[in-house]
Amino acid sequence: MTKANNIQERINIALSQTLRSAKDLPAPPKVAAAIDYAVFPGGARVRPRLCLAVAEACGDDFPKITDTAAAAIELMHCASLVHDDLPCFDNAALRRGKPTVHRAFGETVAVLAGDALIILAFENLAKGCMKCPDRLPSLIRMLTKSSGLPFGICSGQGWESEKKINLSAYHQLKTGSLFVAATCMGAVSAGEDPEPWVELGARVGEAFQVADDLKDVVGQLDELGKPKGQDAINSRPSAVSELGVEGAIDRLQGILSGAIASIPACPGEAQLCEIIRHQAKQLMPSFAADKVL
Amino acid sequence: MTKANNIQERINIALSQTLRSAKDLPAPPKVAAAIDYAVFPGGARVRPRLCLAVAEACGDDFPKITDTAAAAIELMHCASLVHDDLPCFDNAALRRGKPTVHRAFGETVAVLAGDALIILAFENLAKGCMKCPDRLPSLIRMLTKSSGLPFGICSGQGWESEKKINLSAYHQLKTGSLFVAATCMGAVSAGEDPEPWVELGARVGEAFQVADDLKDVVGQLDELGKPKGQDAINSRPSAVSELGVEGAIDRLQGILSGAIASIPACPGEAQLCEIIRHQAKQLMPSFAADKVL
Repeated sequence: MTKANNIQERINIALSQTLRSAKDLPAPPKVAAAIDYAVFPGGARVRPRLCLAVAEACGDDFPKITDTAAAAIELMHCASLVHDDLPCFDNAALRRGKPTVHRAFGETVAVLAGDALIILAFENLAKGCMKCPDRLPSLIRMLTKSSGLPFGICSGQGWESEKKINLSAYHQLKTGSLFVAATCMGAVSAGEDPEPWVELGARVGEAFQVADDLKDVVGQLDELGKPKGQDAINSRPSAVSELGVEGAIDRLQGILSGAIASIPACPGEAQLCEIIRHQAKQLMPSFAADKVL
Repeated sequence: MTKANNIQERINIALSQTLRSAKDLPAPPKVAAAIDYAVFPGGARVRPRLCLAVAEACGDDFPKITDTAAAAIELMHCASLVHDDLPCFDNAALRRGKPTVHRAFGETVAVLAGDALIILAFENLAKGCMKCPDRLPSLIRMLTKSSGLPFGICSGQGWESEKKINLSAYHQLKTGSLFVAATCMGAVSAGEDPEPWVELGARVGEAFQVADDLKDVVGQLDELGKPKGQDAINSRPSAVSELGVEGAIDRLQGILSGAIASIPACPGEAQLCEIIRHQAKQLMPSFAADKVL
């Protein structure tokens, strides 16, 4: 088995274990099925991969904590997608190539599935830290900071309901914050100070958002798993509408170089650089992949 | 200032402090206003009062933790009300005598406000435990158990979307679970074993649900802050539809006696009995208040 497959499997096992007990009776069958449907099969699992990669670069001395941190980040991400797809937000029909949760299970079940996934993220962190509670307060606070008010996903989504919006603050809140959580929680899971890892998370998150804006314009349905052109339809702020396709590609290239340069000195620094470089190539539209150094 | 006013003020201060930083910029103004609107002015604050009462009965050696636990329980309760009132659930127009969050701020803001309150509950717990992290894993797990799948509020709400439903399991999940969290988290906040406190929480929760069913039939709009008859309109299971008004009052009386009898030996046992007895009188419909021993 290759290294990449190993990581993917480690993430999926961590997620399966987290969901297992939640789906037992007396869980109502539809909500139980919906949380599974929202998490499996996943997308690229970019955030938990980043969390694991940083933890491994820092020594990963307590893999159980790292697993629960990575899973918590992915569950929070999945929850935000379920709620963001609801009729009152994007009213999306497709996500990851299949009907969205509310289309498959109804709106009430989708609201509850999102809530349950958020709660499960914290439950999982607490379970992972039962034997090492010292790391739990920081992990919880990083996850809440990245997901709630005033700095997290909820803030980012909330700005879509406001008349005046700042593009860069919006992106940072809606997408960047969970990437910062990924790198910082990876470091804390391995017993390291999170502060030096903020920049890497922020830059990867920013790159990911610009790449997503690009894919929304130039990508194919097969690649994306959802219809393109949604940003324009929903009048969402986008790097492409601001800078054009070429300008957005140049910005993406700059951000990714900065991300690699920001990696702090750590035991697994070289390997982590390779992982980020590999990730960067996948983020670029295929016709511009050679722009990654 | 009386003891009761002291407790009410302690809860409101804890809640205000929790919300304060969440509402700072870059929080989007509408969601920030909505979380405040959902929490203030509150209802009877029954759950955090119960949490504080148990913690005080157990010595309350670390009041900061108790405050954050009590606030976390109330925030989780408020979040569940905001989501439960949404058009896809009860489509409620009034809550605590004023328009529901989605009527006042719109549906997207209401979904996000509920999410933000859930996240804030955990953030607050983590903040409260920074200096005493040993108590945090248990507090988190009790809050998640009472709110998520398979044993918490999300499960209770989820059963409303199922064709076959078990009345007692439904009540336990939708209402009882957060009362169990209130007593158990009160005990853990004060460094005590939660197990002996499960029964008190379960019984108070059951009593509260029966009282709520009774008020929905015999109460006045002024007392309730929402239109009565909602259970019948929404075809909700109810103790009154099962047992009739007199039967439900008898059941309520039995549950409350059992609650008082279940209080474990602890330094503040006598005072806690008085608090529960006082609470019991308030739960009974006014024409049957003398039935509390």
